[in-house]
Amino acid sequence: MQGGIGGKNIILRLEISTEHIQFGQLITLVNEHGGDVIAIDVIRTSENVTVRDITVTMADPAEIDRMTARIKKAQGVKVLSISDRTFLLHLGGKIEMQPKVPIQNRDDLSRVYTPDVARVCMAIHEEPDKAFRLTIKRNTVAVVSDGSAVLGLGNIGPYAAMPVMEGKAMLFKQLGSVDAFPICLDTQDTEEIIKAIKQMAPAFGGINLEDISSPRCFEIEQRLRQELDIPVFHDDQHGTAVVLYAGLINALKVVGKSLSDVKIVVCGIGAAGVACTKILLSAGAVNIIGVDRHGAITADEAYENSMWNWYAQHTNPERLSGTLSEVLKDADVFIGLSAGGVLRREDVKRMNKAPVLFTMANPVPEIAPEEVEDIAGVIATGRSDYPNQINNVLCFPGIFRAALDCRAREINEEMKLAAAEAIANTIRPEELNKLYIIPGVFNETAVQRVREMVIKAAIASGVARRVPRDFR
Amino acid sequence: MQGGIGGKNIILRLEISTEHIQFGQLITLVNEHGGDVIAIDVIRTSENVTVRDITVTMADPAEIDRMTARIKKAQGVKVLSISDRTFLLHLGGKIEMQPKVPIQNRDDLSRVYTPDVARVCMAIHEEPDKAFRLTIKRNTVAVVSDGSAVLGLGNIGPYAAMPVMEGKAMLFKQLGSVDAFPICLDTQDTEEIIKAIKQMAPAFGGINLEDISSPRCFEIEQRLRQELDIPVFHDDQHGTAVVLYAGLINALKVVGKSLSDVKIVVCGIGAAGVACTKILLSAGAVNIIGVDRHGAITADEAYENSMWNWYAQHTNPERLSGTLSEVLKDADVFIGLSAGGVLRREDVKRMNKAPVLFTMANPVPEIAPEEVEDIAGVIATGRSDYPNQINNVLCFPGIFRAALDCRAREINEEMKLAAAEAIANTIRPEELNKLYIIPGVFNETAVQRVREMVIKAAIASGVARRVPRDFR
Repeated sequence: MQGGIGGKNIILRLEISTEHIQFGQLITLVNEHGGDVIAIDVIRTSENVTVRDITVTMADPAEIDRMTARIKKAQGVKVLSISDRTFLLHLGGKIEMQPKVPIQNRDDLSRVYTPDVARVCMAIHEEPDKAFRLTIKRNTVAVVSDGSAVLGLGNIGPYAAMPVMEGKAMLFKQLGSVDAFPICLDTQDTEEIIKAIKQMAPAFGGINLEDISSPRCFEIEQRLRQELDIPVFHDDQHGTAVVLYAGLINALKVVGKSLSDVKIVVCGIGAAGVACTKILLSAGAVNIIGVDRHGAITADEAYENSMWNWYAQHTNPERLSGTLSEVLKDADVFIGLSAGGVLRREDVKRMNKAPVLFTMANPVPEIAPEEVEDIAGVIATGRSDYPNQINNVLCFPGIFRAALDCRAREINEEMKLAAAEAIANTIRPEELNKLYIIPGVFNETAVQRVREMVIKAAIASGVARRVPRDFR
Repeated sequence: MQGGIGGKNIILRLEISTEHIQFGQLITLVNEHGGDVIAIDVIRTSENVTVRDITVTMADPAEIDRMTARIKKAQGVKVLSISDRTFLLHLGGKIEMQPKVPIQNRDDLSRVYTPDVARVCMAIHEEPDKAFRLTIKRNTVAVVSDGSAVLGLGNIGPYAAMPVMEGKAMLFKQLGSVDAFPICLDTQDTEEIIKAIKQMAPAFGGINLEDISSPRCFEIEQRLRQELDIPVFHDDQHGTAVVLYAGLINALKVVGKSLSDVKIVVCGIGAAGVACTKILLSAGAVNIIGVDRHGAITADEAYENSMWNWYAQHTNPERLSGTLSEVLKDADVFIGLSAGGVLRREDVKRMNKAPVLFTMANPVPEIAPEEVEDIAGVIATGRSDYPNQINNVLCFPGIFRAALDCRAREINEEMKLAAAEAIANTIRPEELNKLYIIPGVFNETAVQRVREMVIKAAIASGVARRVPRDFR
C-alpha cells in the first residue's frame, strides 16, 4: 500500500522479532523523522514475535517514505502494511446496504419475505409500472463504468474503478438522497455494455454512466436512451456541460457580454468538449470554434472521428482554420478540456477584452490562473484550490433527484439547461463577482434549486410520468 | 392494490366529494364492517373535493373486501388506493444504500473521491486482489434472478421478482451482516444470464442465484462456478439441501437410524430434489430412489431431461420401478419437493417403522401433518405454522458470511455439509425431540455456528484465500 500523501496520520503494521530489536529503538527512529507515536495496538503475539499497529502523526508527510525505508532495513522488523487515512477509509468499501425496517419477528418476516411478499410481486406482475412504487426502482440509480477512462488515470479496468464509483454513490446519497449502486463491468465492448445495462435495468430508476472512454461513450449513451425508458446520463459529458454552462452564465454577467454575441473557443473535442458545445448551442451560443491537437475543426475538412464531422457541421460558422493560438484572436471565451499548459499568456492577450477562461484540465490546468489573473475577466478551473471550481458534484445529485421524483423517461436538453440555470441562480446578484461565479460543492440550496427547476422542465417538456406532490 | 390478507391495519385513500357524502356516513359504513378508524390524514383539498388517508383497524380482515366494495359504490367517493401494512412496507423498496462515513468537508471529499481516491484505484490496478480489501467486494453479494420461477408464482419476470430479492437482501444483512444487492435480469436466455453475471462480477464477493427455473439453473450455476473466482450458490438448490440435511441428521437421531442404512424416497426431481439427493449422497446415503410424475427414476430407462439420466445412474441401486406408492414400501425417509397432497396415509403405513417425512411442498404439503402424526416418527415441512420448518434462511446468511470472511473461491460440498452439521448441532442433545429437530429462523447462535464450521471446512478443503483473524 502506498503511504505518505494526503494524510498526516499513518498506521504501520509491524511484525517485530523481540529477540532482535527493542521497541524503544523503533520509537526513536520514528521520532528522528518528525513522527509522533500516538497509539500502539497489539494485534497478535507469540513467544518471539509480536504484531503491532503503530499509529504515527507525521509533522512532515514527505518524511514518511524515508522513515519507512529505514524501518524496512532494520533487523528484526517486517513491515506488513502502511495505511494512511485515505486507505483506512476505503477498507471494506465505502458504502453498505441497509434494510429500511428491521425484521424483528415472524410477522415481519412474513410481510417482507414469504409468504406475504407474493401479493406485492403479483401486483407488480399485473401492472409493471408499480415497480416504481413498490421496489427500490423508485429511488435507485446504477453508477456504471467499464473502467476505460477513470479520472485522469486512463484505462485501469473495472476493479480499480470501483473506489470512484463507490465515492459517487456516497455523494448521490448524501447530497441528493438518491440510492446509488456501483456496477463496474468486466467488458469494454460497446454492444456488450449496452446489453448488460439493459438486462440489469429492472432494479433501477436511472443509469449514470461514468468514466467510459470516447467515442464509445456516445454510442452507448445514445443507444441506451433509445432502448430504455429510464434516464441515462453520461456524467462526464453532461454533468460537466451543465456546470460549465452554469459558470458561463454568471461569468458573462460579470464581464457584461451576451451568450449569443460571444466568440467561444473550445479546446479538446472529446466527450466533455462535445457535450459542452452542445449545451451552449442549445442555450443560444452561435459562434463556437472547436480546436483539437490538429487545430480548428472546420467543415472544410473530413475527419475519421465521426463526432468531429458532426462537430464541424454544427460549429465554426466562419470556417476558421489554424492553431489554437490563431483562432483565439478576438475570442471572448476559452473553454479548455484538454491538457495542462496548452494555453499561453500571449494567447490570452490576443483575446477580446475581459476574456473568460475555463481551464478545466486536471490536475494541471491549461494555464495556471496566477499567470493571467491580471488580464483575465473571469477564470474558472476544475480544481478546488482556486476560486470558481467547475465540479460535477453540483449537478448529478440534484438532476437525478428530480428525474426520480417525477419519474422522468429521460434527462433531456430542457432539463439540463434548467439545471444550469438553477446552479447559476444559486448565487445572488449582489454576491456575484469574478471570484464567485459558481456555488461551492457543499452549498446547501443548490440541490433543492436544481431539483425544482429540473422537475418543472421535465413536466413542461412532457417527459415526467408523475407530478410530485409539491408540484400539484 | 390488493387488500385484506395478512394485516389488520389498512389505509384507504379516498377522494371525497363534500357535496355528495358526509364524512360521518363513511365512518358509519366502516364501523358496520367491524372497522375502527384510528387516523385521518388530509392529503390535499379543494373547494368541493378532499383527498384523505383513512387508517382503519379491522376486527376481521375478511371483511375488508366487502367493506371496500360498499365504499366504492357510495356516491361521491372515489377509492384512490387501498394499502395494507405489507404494501406500505414495500413503498419505495425495502433496502437503501448508505455511506459508511459522512462527507463533511472538503478534506473528506478529497479522500473518498477525487483527487485522493486515485491512489486507492492505482493500488488495486497494481494488485487486483486488493479489490477484496479496498472495495465493497469484501462484503457484498449479488442476489440474481431472472424472475422465471419466483416462489410458487412461476415465471412472473424480473420486475415482479424484485420484492423477493429485496427481502432476501434484508435477511442477508440482518442475519449475516452481508451487504446484498438485488439484480433482476431482463433476459431468460442461459448464455445471456451467464455473460451478464460475469460482466458485473467485479463489484461482488459472491453470487446468490435465486428463483431461476430448472433445468437452466444447473447450467448457469455450473458454468459460473467454472468461470468466476468467487462463490456462486443457487440457494433454491443448495440452501434447501443444506437445511434439509440438517433436519435429517437430527430426525435420524430421533428415530435411531443411520444415514447409510436408510431407504430414502425423494419425490419431485427438480432443482431442489437433485440438490438434496446430491448432498445426501455426499453425506453417505446409499439407497436413494427418486420419483417424479412418471414414477421411479431408474437406470433401466433413458430420459429426455439430462439431469434425470445423471440421477438414474447415481441413485436407485436396486433399480426399483413403479409409482411413488410402490417404491415407498419399507422406505425409512420420504422427502417431498413436489406438490400438495401427493402422499396418502396408506403410503405412509407401507413405510418402515417410525417413518421420517419431509413434506416440503409449499403452501400445501405433500400430506397434512395432522393426517399422519400418529404413525410418523418425525415430520418436517416448509411451513412456519407446523413444527420443524425447513427454511433456507437458516443457511444462506451464515454460509456467505463464512465464504466472504475467508475469501472462499467457491462454496464446495465440504462447506455445505459443514453448514448442515452446524445447523443440526445448534440443537443440544437434551433439547432434541420429534417436534424440534431444526432451530427456528431467529435462532441467534445458528449463523455463528454455520460461519465457524464452514470457514474450517473451506480452509481444510483448500478454497479459502484468507484465514480470518479469529482462526489464526
